[in-house]
Amino acid sequence: MVEQIAGGYNGKILRVNLSGKHLSTETIDELFCRKYLGGAGFISYFLWQELEQGIDPLAPENKLIFALGPVTGMSISGSGRHCIGAKSPLTGGYTKSEVGGNWGAELKRAGYDAIIIEGKAEKPVYLWVNDGEASLKDASHLWGMSTKETQNSIRTELGDNLIRVATIGPGGENLVRFACIINDLHDAAGRGGTGAVMGSKNLKAIGVRGHKAPQVAHPEHLKELRKWLLAHRELWAGFNELGTGGGMEAGMLTGNLPVHNFRDGEFPDASKISAEAVRDTIRINMETCFACPIRCKKVVRVDEPYPVDPAYGGPEYEALASLGSNCGISDLKAIAKANELCNAYSLDAISTGVVIAFAMECFENGLLTEKDTDGIELKFGNTEAMLKTTELIARREGIGSLLAEGTARAARKIGKGAMEFAMQVKGLEIGMHEPRLKAALGLGYSINPHGADHCANFHDTMASGRGRNRLKLLGLLEPMPADELSPRKVSLFHNVHKERIIRDCLALCSFVPWDIEQINDILSAVTGWQTGVVEMMRVAERTLTMARLFNLREGFTAADDKLPERFHQPKRNGVLSTRFYDPQELEKARSYYYTLMGWDARTGIPTPEKLADLGID
Amino acid sequence: MVEQIAGGYNGKILRVNLSGKHLSTETIDELFCRKYLGGAGFISYFLWQELEQGIDPLAPENKLIFALGPVTGMSISGSGRHCIGAKSPLTGGYTKSEVGGNWGAELKRAGYDAIIIEGKAEKPVYLWVNDGEASLKDASHLWGMSTKETQNSIRTELGDNLIRVATIGPGGENLVRFACIINDLHDAAGRGGTGAVMGSKNLKAIGVRGHKAPQVAHPEHLKELRKWLLAHRELWAGFNELGTGGGMEAGMLTGNLPVHNFRDGEFPDASKISAEAVRDTIRINMETCFACPIRCKKVVRVDEPYPVDPAYGGPEYEALASLGSNCGISDLKAIAKANELCNAYSLDAISTGVVIAFAMECFENGLLTEKDTDGIELKFGNTEAMLKTTELIARREGIGSLLAEGTARAARKIGKGAMEFAMQVKGLEIGMHEPRLKAALGLGYSINPHGADHCANFHDTMASGRGRNRLKLLGLLEPMPADELSPRKVSLFHNVHKERIIRDCLALCSFVPWDIEQINDILSAVTGWQTGVVEMMRVAERTLTMARLFNLREGFTAADDKLPERFHQPKRNGVLSTRFYDPQELEKARSYYYTLMGWDARTGIPTPEKLADLGID
Repeated sequence: MVEQIAGGYNGKILRVNLSGKHLSTETIDELFCRKYLGGAGFISYFLWQELEQGIDPLAPENKLIFALGPVTGMSISGSGRHCIGAKSPLTGGYTKSEVGGNWGAELKRAGYDAIIIEGKAEKPVYLWVNDGEASLKDASHLWGMSTKETQNSIRTELGDNLIRVATIGPGGENLVRFACIINDLHDAAGRGGTGAVMGSKNLKAIGVRGHKAPQVAHPEHLKELRKWLLAHRELWAGFNELGTGGGMEAGMLTGNLPVHNFRDGEFPDASKISAEAVRDTIRINMETCFACPIRCKKVVRVDEPYPVDPAYGGPEYEALASLGSNCGISDLKAIAKANELCNAYSLDAISTGVVIAFAMECFENGLLTEKDTDGIELKFGNTEAMLKTTELIARREGIGSLLAEGTARAARKIGKGAMEFAMQVKGLEIGMHEPRLKAALGLGYSINPHGADHCANFHDTMASGRGRNRLKLLGLLEPMPADELSPRKVSLFHNVHKERIIRDCLALCSFVPWDIEQINDILSAVTGWQTGVVEMMRVAERTLTMARLFNLREGFTAADDKLPERFHQPKRNGVLSTRFYDPQELEKARSYYYTLMGWDARTGIPTPEKLADLGID
Repeated sequence: MVEQIAGGYNGKILRVNLSGKHLSTETIDELFCRKYLGGAGFISYFLWQELEQGIDPLAPENKLIFALGPVTGMSISGSGRHCIGAKSPLTGGYTKSEVGGNWGAELKRAGYDAIIIEGKAEKPVYLWVNDGEASLKDASHLWGMSTKETQNSIRTELGDNLIRVATIGPGGENLVRFACIINDLHDAAGRGGTGAVMGSKNLKAIGVRGHKAPQVAHPEHLKELRKWLLAHRELWAGFNELGTGGGMEAGMLTGNLPVHNFRDGEFPDASKISAEAVRDTIRINMETCFACPIRCKKVVRVDEPYPVDPAYGGPEYEALASLGSNCGISDLKAIAKANELCNAYSLDAISTGVVIAFAMECFENGLLTEKDTDGIELKFGNTEAMLKTTELIARREGIGSLLAEGTARAARKIGKGAMEFAMQVKGLEIGMHEPRLKAALGLGYSINPHGADHCANFHDTMASGRGRNRLKLLGLLEPMPADELSPRKVSLFHNVHKERIIRDCLALCSFVPWDIEQINDILSAVTGWQTGVVEMMRVAERTLTMARLFNLREGFTAADDKLPERFHQPKRNGVLSTRFYDPQELEKARSYYYTLMGWDARTGIPTPEKLADLGID
């Protein structure tokens, strides 16, 4: 008997113990759903409740969680997402990462709200979820395959070309600590190394097929929201035209674009790696996620000198910057190739670019030599070196074996002051946005439980100038300079950060310009609950606080909520060559953020009152 | 030239200096309006910014502020309200009080958003505001008149029967510290003694007439909200049928109904003073405020033994309890008469009943004798004594002179432990709801800047049982017992309290069952701003924090955020005769409330960060 559950939910979680090859279905009730919503909320709950302290993230004791939100797979723009979480092999703490595409929507139609993977299979397997039935299948023949080969093989052997596949490539198999999980070949749950966790479990892929239309409580309300979005094309026309990475030269001139491992500001070739350049040279199409009219995803094709397969999509801003300017590279085709390699091998493009830039700076400073690199001249701007190193990382060969450990571990192994060049927080490589320009973003990098993420964050430039209307709803009364780090800025950050976490719970894309009240309308329309923004904000607090508790249990302290020293110095050149991020201001801001979260102002430990308030055990 | 301003606002404040007979119009801009909204927000701002520390509330240096909200006078249920504030002659701190009726809507149509009264007139005057023009008129001939006589006289002499009049009666003239301001004869801005401030300024009344239809940005959205309310009659049918005060016997049986100065629980005659009894005996009609279909206001007529003029409306629950059970009186006609006297003399019916009950308990305990009362046997249940004492208070004659000082001052004057019987917080007499039943309500009584108010408060019984859906939007996941005072309850209180303050800023009646999201819809529809709940919540924080600062400036400390000792003992009989309000629990709850507000957990002083965050100087 199926229990009645709110719209948007199936009320079912698939639990797969790979060690025992035991598959079971668990039910969740409405109170649970309303308390945690889904996505990041579910992940925080299960990681906090179910993981033992101190386990090795790559051991069978870790769990890998795929969680949908109530909005996943609904006919509304931004609904093509889901969330993947685990104990991170990169940070040793909490991690979660969102991904778009169609896989999540398919899982919703297959009858589940989440999949929890436990244990470790003896031999490579893949999971096949088909309309409420789940089974494990041998994947020995898939091991070593690229993501595309894997998807093709699974579709062929199961005889259905519409199966959606989430998979790892060799990067995940080889336990690259920043390996990601790829679905639909070009959509990556990029951050935190969930792909390595998947590899450590000998789980190659999850294929999904479903035909059950999800229940929506008020389809007519969703329709109104869809109409609103179509009527406000001006809010997303830029994304539709270019995707991410437009105006790269302007980004360089404001100082946002990382250059040479965040060391420099000047990059005269910025416009060569811009989304405009992509459009004008290698772009052949734009793609989109489930039910989204925005179509922000580039598809590129390159024939020579590096063949780039359009099946793998095209580079987002993060890849253009991390594999481009941050490595001193302006060869767009090479960047597109590296991006393709990341998707084929299941490597996080941000971490890959940052760890290579780190290695380049080490090389230029003599901390790594050609002896370490087997002769590769790992200098900024060396395109071939960047491509070669990407391959080596995926295969964990040569210098790649060191870099596959991630920037922080590599720096510790190199020693000799290499940590100075390690652009990471808590072990997670920093996103392609500059804290010396965006002050609250730097706070977000430092306090995020999963490390220096640019997604669950606030981009201060949105609050300068005219200020965006969406921010007014979150407390912005007057424009605030991007480099301001006052209490009012911290407060705005705190609200925007929670809004982002709400999206990660629902799971709803951050690129779709829904404001917080519309997000609430979407949740109400889908579930049929009469929900409120305050209620959603509390779910975000709950999600973040459980993630905080998880990290505290693993030994993290407030001292881990910091930025790399480099940001406390000016850039060597360019527009930010006289500005630095004041560490004392950061400390004050962090303390106020803790206070706003109901955490101890000094230690960042959630107070017993706050835990009781939020109903966290 | 009139500046463009958002819908709902006139953009103008009328400032009247009575000492210099100087009238001026000031403009306010959109940023100011969006930061403070109106009503209580405007009052907090002006009191904090403009009043000198330590002034006598009855001196010319005090200011009396009438403030509309953007919703005042709009065609939506609950919009008939405005807010009046000053430094309170009763508490010596911040006070504000809301009132319904039609006066506020008329002022909106006359072209102003607020009136600030300063100084003191040499001789009695009244203010005449007529379609954007304002003038002071002699009121010597009105001095001493009842509110009805005053209204009639002003209408007659200005030749317009539709003039709306806010006025004081003899209570305000005689500086009864809990005198109120009455408009439309039966609508009282009851609490905190603003009527005494008006009297101290020799201002008898403000007559208003206006013809300018207020601007509404999206009238079609307001129409939708009106339709929703009419379609959900079940949410307000009880109010429509009975008004306040239904089910008085049930209230007694749960322990909520105050009996004998909050000392006892048993009151066998409760049903005799219930709204059902009013309906079945003395009620002749129901009235309503501007634009409201709910029609919750009783109109009663009594011919003998006490003639009660229907022009003065009828008793609300607060009057039925304060002048009834709390004084041990179950004679409905006598209560109706006392209520009429309060409206005619401009006395706050709650404070009047509480101070009389206090005197009765003093009398029964020998702290007051017939010598003090000129022979009145001031015992619980003595109907004639209650009526007589009400008269004496208004005239400040005999025992009335002492009681006109309010319960706290009277207790201090009597000494000999009389304070034990003074049911007040910060000097404001306690509303007719029992903290030993409703735990968070007790917290609200103790921390409210204007004292023990039941309006800007949370009634815990709403969260027990099934829980109301409106509360789910504010964080209620599961029902909570009424006497629970856990962090989750404090947190819910904190959100509901802010919701109430938002209503007081807009100014929107608390009886209309709009939820917080609908309140935001109303604000957006009226102003044309795209507003958000988070933004509104911040206005509430700003309003409460400025009020807190005002009180701190006047010497209040956390020690003033307490309850009368009586609540920390069980009732002498009835359902709560074994339950008491734990003072340590209150202290913990208060501390957590301070934390949620961004105030120091121990002292309740707003942190510098919070002030900077909210933009308070």
